[in-house]
Amino acid sequence: MTIVGHLINGEMRTDAARSQDVFNPATGLATKQVALASKETVEEAIAAAQAAFPEWRNTPVGKRAAVMFRFKALLEQNADKICEMIGEEHGKISHDAAGELQRGIENVEYACGVAELLKGEHSKNVGPNIDSWSEFQPLGVVTGITPFNFPAMVPLWMYPMAIACGNTFVLKPSERDPSSTLFIAQLLQEAGLPDGVMNVVNGDKEAVDTLLTDVRVKAVSFVGSTAIAEYIYTTANANGKRCQALGGAKNHAIVMPDADMDNAVNQLLGAAFGSSGERCMALSVAVAVGDQAADALVAKMSAAMQSLKVGAATDSSNDFGPVITRQHQQKVVGYIDSSEKDGATIVVDGRNPQVSGYEEGFFVGATLIDGVTPAMVSYQEEIFGPVLQVVRVNTMDEAMQLINDHEYGNGTCIFTRDGEAARYFSDNIQVGMVGINVPLPVPVSYHSFGGWKRSLFGDLHAYGPDAVRFYTKRKTITQRWPSSGVREGVSFAFPS
Amino acid sequence: MTIVGHLINGEMRTDAARSQDVFNPATGLATKQVALASKETVEEAIAAAQAAFPEWRNTPVGKRAAVMFRFKALLEQNADKICEMIGEEHGKISHDAAGELQRGIENVEYACGVAELLKGEHSKNVGPNIDSWSEFQPLGVVTGITPFNFPAMVPLWMYPMAIACGNTFVLKPSERDPSSTLFIAQLLQEAGLPDGVMNVVNGDKEAVDTLLTDVRVKAVSFVGSTAIAEYIYTTANANGKRCQALGGAKNHAIVMPDADMDNAVNQLLGAAFGSSGERCMALSVAVAVGDQAADALVAKMSAAMQSLKVGAATDSSNDFGPVITRQHQQKVVGYIDSSEKDGATIVVDGRNPQVSGYEEGFFVGATLIDGVTPAMVSYQEEIFGPVLQVVRVNTMDEAMQLINDHEYGNGTCIFTRDGEAARYFSDNIQVGMVGINVPLPVPVSYHSFGGWKRSLFGDLHAYGPDAVRFYTKRKTITQRWPSSGVREGVSFAFPS
Amino acid sequence: MTIVGHLINGEMRTDAARSQDVFNPATGLATKQVALASKETVEEAIAAAQAAFPEWRNTPVGKRAAVMFRFKALLEQNADKICEMIGEEHGKISHDAAGELQRGIENVEYACGVAELLKGEHSKNVGPNIDSWSEFQPLGVVTGITPFNFPAMVPLWMYPMAIACGNTFVLKPSERDPSSTLFIAQLLQEAGLPDGVMNVVNGDKEAVDTLLTDVRVKAVSFVGSTAIAEYIYTTANANGKRCQALGGAKNHAIVMPDADMDNAVNQLLGAAFGSSGERCMALSVAVAVGDQAADALVAKMSAAMQSLKVGAATDSSNDFGPVITRQHQQKVVGYIDSSEKDGATIVVDGRNPQVSGYEEGFFVGATLIDGVTPAMVSYQEEIFGPVLQVVRVNTMDEAMQLINDHEYGNGTCIFTRDGEAARYFSDNIQVGMVGINVPLPVPVSYHSFGGWKRSLFGDLHAYGPDAVRFYTKRKTITQRWPSSGVREGVSFAFPS
Amino acid sequence: MTIVGHLINGEMRTDAARSQDVFNPATGLATKQVALASKETVEEAIAAAQAAFPEWRNTPVGKRAAVMFRFKALLEQNADKICEMIGEEHGKISHDAAGELQRGIENVEYACGVAELLKGEHSKNVGPNIDSWSEFQPLGVVTGITPFNFPAMVPLWMYPMAIACGNTFVLKPSERDPSSTLFIAQLLQEAGLPDGVMNVVNGDKEAVDTLLTDVRVKAVSFVGSTAIAEYIYTTANANGKRCQALGGAKNHAIVMPDADMDNAVNQLLGAAFGSSGERCMALSVAVAVGDQAADALVAKMSAAMQSLKVGAATDSSNDFGPVITRQHQQKVVGYIDSSEKDGATIVVDGRNPQVSGYEEGFFVGATLIDGVTPAMVSYQEEIFGPVLQVVRVNTMDEAMQLINDHEYGNGTCIFTRDGEAARYFSDNIQVGMVGINVPLPVPVSYHSFGGWKRSLFGDLHAYGPDAVRFYTKRKTITQRWPSSGVREGVSFAFPS
Repeated sequence: MTIVGHLINGEMRTDAARSQDVFNPATGLATKQVALASKETVEEAIAAAQAAFPEWRNTPVGKRAAVMFRFKALLEQNADKICEMIGEEHGKISHDAAGELQRGIENVEYACGVAELLKGEHSKNVGPNIDSWSEFQPLGVVTGITPFNFPAMVPLWMYPMAIACGNTFVLKPSERDPSSTLFIAQLLQEAGLPDGVMNVVNGDKEAVDTLLTDVRVKAVSFVGSTAIAEYIYTTANANGKRCQALGGAKNHAIVMPDADMDNAVNQLLGAAFGSSGERCMALSVAVAVGDQAADALVAKMSAAMQSLKVGAATDSSNDFGPVITRQHQQKVVGYIDSSEKDGATIVVDGRNPQVSGYEEGFFVGATLIDGVTPAMVSYQEEIFGPVLQVVRVNTMDEAMQLINDHEYGNGTCIFTRDGEAARYFSDNIQVGMVGINVPLPVPVSYHSFGGWKRSLFGDLHAYGPDAVRFYTKRKTITQRWPSSGVREGVSFAFPS
Repeated sequence: MTIVGHLINGEMRTDAARSQDVFNPATGLATKQVALASKETVEEAIAAAQAAFPEWRNTPVGKRAAVMFRFKALLEQNADKICEMIGEEHGKISHDAAGELQRGIENVEYACGVAELLKGEHSKNVGPNIDSWSEFQPLGVVTGITPFNFPAMVPLWMYPMAIACGNTFVLKPSERDPSSTLFIAQLLQEAGLPDGVMNVVNGDKEAVDTLLTDVRVKAVSFVGSTAIAEYIYTTANANGKRCQALGGAKNHAIVMPDADMDNAVNQLLGAAFGSSGERCMALSVAVAVGDQAADALVAKMSAAMQSLKVGAATDSSNDFGPVITRQHQQKVVGYIDSSEKDGATIVVDGRNPQVSGYEEGFFVGATLIDGVTPAMVSYQEEIFGPVLQVVRVNTMDEAMQLINDHEYGNGTCIFTRDGEAARYFSDNIQVGMVGINVPLPVPVSYHSFGGWKRSLFGDLHAYGPDAVRFYTKRKTITQRWPSSGVREGVSFAFPS
Repeated sequence: MTIVGHLINGEMRTDAARSQDVFNPATGLATKQVALASKETVEEAIAAAQAAFPEWRNTPVGKRAAVMFRFKALLEQNADKICEMIGEEHGKISHDAAGELQRGIENVEYACGVAELLKGEHSKNVGPNIDSWSEFQPLGVVTGITPFNFPAMVPLWMYPMAIACGNTFVLKPSERDPSSTLFIAQLLQEAGLPDGVMNVVNGDKEAVDTLLTDVRVKAVSFVGSTAIAEYIYTTANANGKRCQALGGAKNHAIVMPDADMDNAVNQLLGAAFGSSGERCMALSVAVAVGDQAADALVAKMSAAMQSLKVGAATDSSNDFGPVITRQHQQKVVGYIDSSEKDGATIVVDGRNPQVSGYEEGFFVGATLIDGVTPAMVSYQEEIFGPVLQVVRVNTMDEAMQLINDHEYGNGTCIFTRDGEAARYFSDNIQVGMVGINVPLPVPVSYHSFGGWKRSLFGDLHAYGPDAVRFYTKRKTITQRWPSSGVREGVSFAFPS
Repeated sequence: MTIVGHLINGEMRTDAARSQDVFNPATGLATKQVALASKETVEEAIAAAQAAFPEWRNTPVGKRAAVMFRFKALLEQNADKICEMIGEEHGKISHDAAGELQRGIENVEYACGVAELLKGEHSKNVGPNIDSWSEFQPLGVVTGITPFNFPAMVPLWMYPMAIACGNTFVLKPSERDPSSTLFIAQLLQEAGLPDGVMNVVNGDKEAVDTLLTDVRVKAVSFVGSTAIAEYIYTTANANGKRCQALGGAKNHAIVMPDADMDNAVNQLLGAAFGSSGERCMALSVAVAVGDQAADALVAKMSAAMQSLKVGAATDSSNDFGPVITRQHQQKVVGYIDSSEKDGATIVVDGRNPQVSGYEEGFFVGATLIDGVTPAMVSYQEEIFGPVLQVVRVNTMDEAMQLINDHEYGNGTCIFTRDGEAARYFSDNIQVGMVGINVPLPVPVSYHSFGGWKRSLFGDLHAYGPDAVRFYTKRKTITQRWPSSGVREGVSFAFPS
């Protein structure tokens, strides 16, 4: 069975001591092994990154950007292969994998413009003949720890900009679907990156803890669940590292009475069930304002859901695929059960999807639950599956209060035609990414991604302009030259 | 005896339970008492700030800036009184206090420009008819915890910008010299700030820990020693707060053989002994490259030091005053003793200064120590007194290695005429604030202040542009309007 | 009779050769004389500005900003006096004059933040050990030529930022109402500006042409009518000067069927008749979409207009005052006559206002004209009086076409609740300043003011960020230091 | 004989009416014909651009950038072919052509980052519930008129950014060497640009004047001689167009006594003679401070020049090639004659270079002239050939005065090790692009290119950040929503 290993100092490596299964979630079968790096292996990667830093840091910024331009081209040339790899291990359908990859490539494109982004601020004559300016210098060795749900995109949020800024990198991707991530890192190597600048180690907690405590690692970017995010953040900070840790979400859409309901339903369909709902920006709660809106929403949504097709990644006509593991499948089903037990109505039930030929796959069908209330556990927690919950409220303020009271604050959306409602919502909602008639308000690559409340730990958001600040530290230089130098010397030395 | 109390919700308050002495360090006598806020008192301040937040946040940015313009005027009108207050409790001479206040006022001026600084980024057509923009929204209640050595300036690094950004504030200043800080806060109130937006609580660890753990406090700015900074940072982060914590320093100046030596000595004199060396940017180590430069430096410096005058703040002809407490005086003297014991040469000895009429004052005279080596404890630690240590090295690289190996990385400087030496130094030195022939490279108010290594914990520096980012959180809004609104409706409704 | 003169090199001057009357437009009587500067006088002002330039340019930016802070304070202290001066010569009521002055002061406030705004861009390592940065250096002597309608505000758009950037200035204000402008310039002098940095010359075409052709003048800012703006722009450019010239306007508001009609009428009332319509941002055409909206608009507007009160500036209960001259009064009345003759309906007729006690004043009452069409001369030209024209169309696209076809493109507005209509409008309308339910979309001081089409000649808008670029020129410096300097020299010279 | 034609609306075209010879300057033979567009042909191109504008303007910015990414790749794939085309018609050697192309490609790369560069400024709550933001909208049809000396690079300064910003373009390149320019435009078409967005017309004054006067053209970028630049600028402005026109140069290097002379000579060699000196950034005057520096410079330079090899582009071991035409060759030789006649010393004489096999080529050899003075015509005018003039002065101030007194102010340089001298120079020199030990201080693509004085007409520099401002116009939108919309409506409609 193939073993997915590591990339250290420009070389492909496997760490023989420990490994674990990688599954095809559509078949339920283990198809590969992934090596789990020991502390020593991780330290080798860190050492390689440390050794590569001084020269890479001094490489002119244009040459660093040139590697990103080539990397982008290679990603595009290898897109089909990458999407296939994602499909095999994650289970997402090719159109969805292609979307993920495209978003990732856009982060590489943004890193191509690093020369503009790294500009410091120059002030002339802050005092008599004194100038002052800032430089944004790289940190050194930085690391990323990334989740299974976007094996291509989330790592690409991190290392292209980190590396373009002059840092060197050690990536610890998800051990659930490691192949595409590793392959993409090889493409970066192929793009002309010097050995040791980019390293990948597969692994588990041992690898993570090594990265979090090694004094040579200067910064940690993490995306995952809130519990782990908090652990990562606290541990990294206690070890003197800068950290940004993105956690869980429970993203609500308010559906106003004046909304274009057909449009709203159409948008929500993809936002709730796309990628089996395994997205931290998945829209998992629709808050309908008034029963009229709620009834219309539920009726149209349940009708629209009839045409949704769940199945294996190999059939591109499917709308979405399996969830990542057997355990996760059971957890999602458990949340549906719990909703039902708590008094909610299962309008469309995806607990027993029939996927012919894939009876052992980890499938959950699209599920619509009406009458959900804030008191239910299934409302309070992140389900991370193809489940849309409907909550009914009487007023917009009530809807907003619901959102503001929730532990998470990643994304949210309002469906309305009314300018004032939209502005009041976006101003006052305690959520980091807000959509006006846009159910998945993932910022484009030249803005930054980040939730509020317990959806993100740290000062700076992911990718975009904030990433430049995260991966660099400010140095401020103040300069005055003594006045009796060669200039006046010459004046005296050569009288006319 | 006067009790220095608190400012809570627009009212002056004293918390009767506990208090401690405030000394005049020139006479060694306790002259006032400072109230030490209980947990309950601090919570009242937090509650007041919390209550004031919604309205202040919604106050248009221009109106928030208007308060800062008036505050600046009041600070200027009350400058003499403030400087006198500083002199009485901190001991610094009026010209030095005036310098501190001026630097503080410049931070208020920068906050006057907050409307420009808060601008978000707007992108048209990120997709078909989809726009996206960012807003930098205030955090809520934020706090500052500040040291004795700049009772006016360091608080002014923090709350003017925090408040201008729309936050409300609770300040916990130093209990050693609380009067000027409290008075300045009253001036802000007088400038038209609504009650509760700015609050001051005097106190000790009880107050600090209340601020660090209260869930309503969203961010902490701290300046003090590294040990406390690290505690503050870790505790604040573990309690879900954003934090920047500035700690200790050991600032080196490299004196190159081509330096303008008279200029260097003249500059170092103020940088080493000004404010009795109780500055985190004090230049406390001169690293001379080559014995020729070292001998010249020591000779000229010891000569120049003869004219330095130490004494009470009431005599403005003095160059610097006492240190802050009896204990600190003894600690500084202890470092001089230790240098001597470790084999260094005490070239000018300030251990027994004669200050006529102030025999009980906490004075230490200007001290020059030659032959200091990295192995000495007095080199490794921050002395925070009027002591300049000279280290002799053979090459510039050796000098830089010394600096890069030190635990701290706040400020540093090089004296040279050579463009290449200056550029190599500023590029490669592991220090956050770098001077070229500028021994105190404190950034002006429109740049940001921050050290590297264990001199600062956090991603963002103090004041300047970074303060705007520290005191706000990014919200990204993505907007698309459904197409069949009133516009097309009208087209069909009123055919010509 | 008082003669209003010039401010040259810090001294008040009158130029005896020629002068002309200054009227009180409420009484119709000449109350003062204004000196008209000869070519020689203007050249003296230019020479003074030229002489003051080198030192002012080298004054640290913080010291330049300090003058602006003091200037702001003096403007606020003298606000009543300034408003009275404006009222006497321009005729606008005190609340209106106060509004003008406040807008002007906000430009001074923005100039207080010049240190931030002048920051250049610094790039490290554009090549191996090569750095590059930009500086925005002042131009030298620059000039402003300003109109009668905002004697305080429009000059304050220009010289505070020009001077804060390090330029020196010669202002040629309107000779119709010169007193407040001159007085304000004296306040700037009082604020501590060195002699010669700010100069004012009153005058006519002789003064203007001298400024436009003198080789020492580097830039011209102009606000006035389009015909003159074009002359100024072409002449200045042909004489090697940078120029921005703002001209006329015809600002339309689209009133959509879904508009909040009471709000729209209330807003339009001030926007159409405030300051007698003598504003380049006056809203002079309401385009109603559909007859239903049009009928409601005309009915509510004509009702609301009954309460409008026209009269002298001395009575602050008046809504607006006279127009500037007898000739202009007749011109405005002529446009009303012409509308009527062309078939429009004069719904409310202001041609014979009764202002008791001011029978000789230059008054025109608020006038509402319905049924205006694009073919009418009164529609095609700028009336610049208290006249609101109503055009009726069937669709929003028709309304927009009307606006896009007009020669001018200064300001415009839409009244709607619909997000999509607003966004379509702001995206596609060929106008520089767009309001959504804001009839006078004058940008705040930290944005920039400028129309499109024949409302502005030049690349950069007035005040705000664009002013910084207009009043400075970019210098780009690229730096590499030879490698064998003192640094390595030392390495060899002092081997260990 | 091949006819080089036009690219209009996506099609290759030739305009049969008129044409002229294109020469190979190394052989002196005409090898092709270039079509000269009639007024009608140019108008067709403008019409095509006008028609393509609305859709291209509305294309999301990311899709516009995507074309630039593909364009960059095609330029790199076709680099050899392009360099060969340049060599055949311009005469420059392949390494020089490759350098030109690389610089051009970097401008395409900068345009890839257009999404970041187009961001507007968004201000929340400029008043109560009022927001304001700016958008930078494209102008429409814009044009570029470019010189022979950089047939690839200078057009690439212009249209990639213009097009990325949403404009459509008509390029009128030099008729001397049109092939590479046209071919590159075809590559852009191949990259996926819609028909009509990019158009090329070859031609002469008829084409130029059509572009300058057609009302549909909104902006003109020009690079050429100062006389023509001034004509272009004045004509474009008088026709209501925005314009930036770059003209001639006379770039001086100051050689200080402390300069690293070997380095200076080595640098000057390329800067003076590279591309036969036919660069507006060519370093054509060395100003030596003190006779000692001058003597050393002349001695080392004349020695170094011995190894320079002039010849045809086909031999890549040549250092530089012929000048562009027979007439220009004679003009350059005329300047050398005139220097000699005026009393200067021809130290190295390039008037009769022997280029075996290319006796009819338009060659001039590298020429060094000592003892040049400001009174000489050859000093006052731009030679634009491989000629380096040496002026001797006694002091640095004298050297700077010389530069500041010259009509042109494009580029300049100082050779020194001294920080103070460099800073004094860069601060006070009246030149737009300044080098410190960098003789060709051409800004990198993410800064902007522009001279001062009569080297540039216009407010904004070429390429880099300024290009974004040049190719867009600011629109400022101010928005308030009426308060009684669907939001409150819902509150009342559905009471609990």
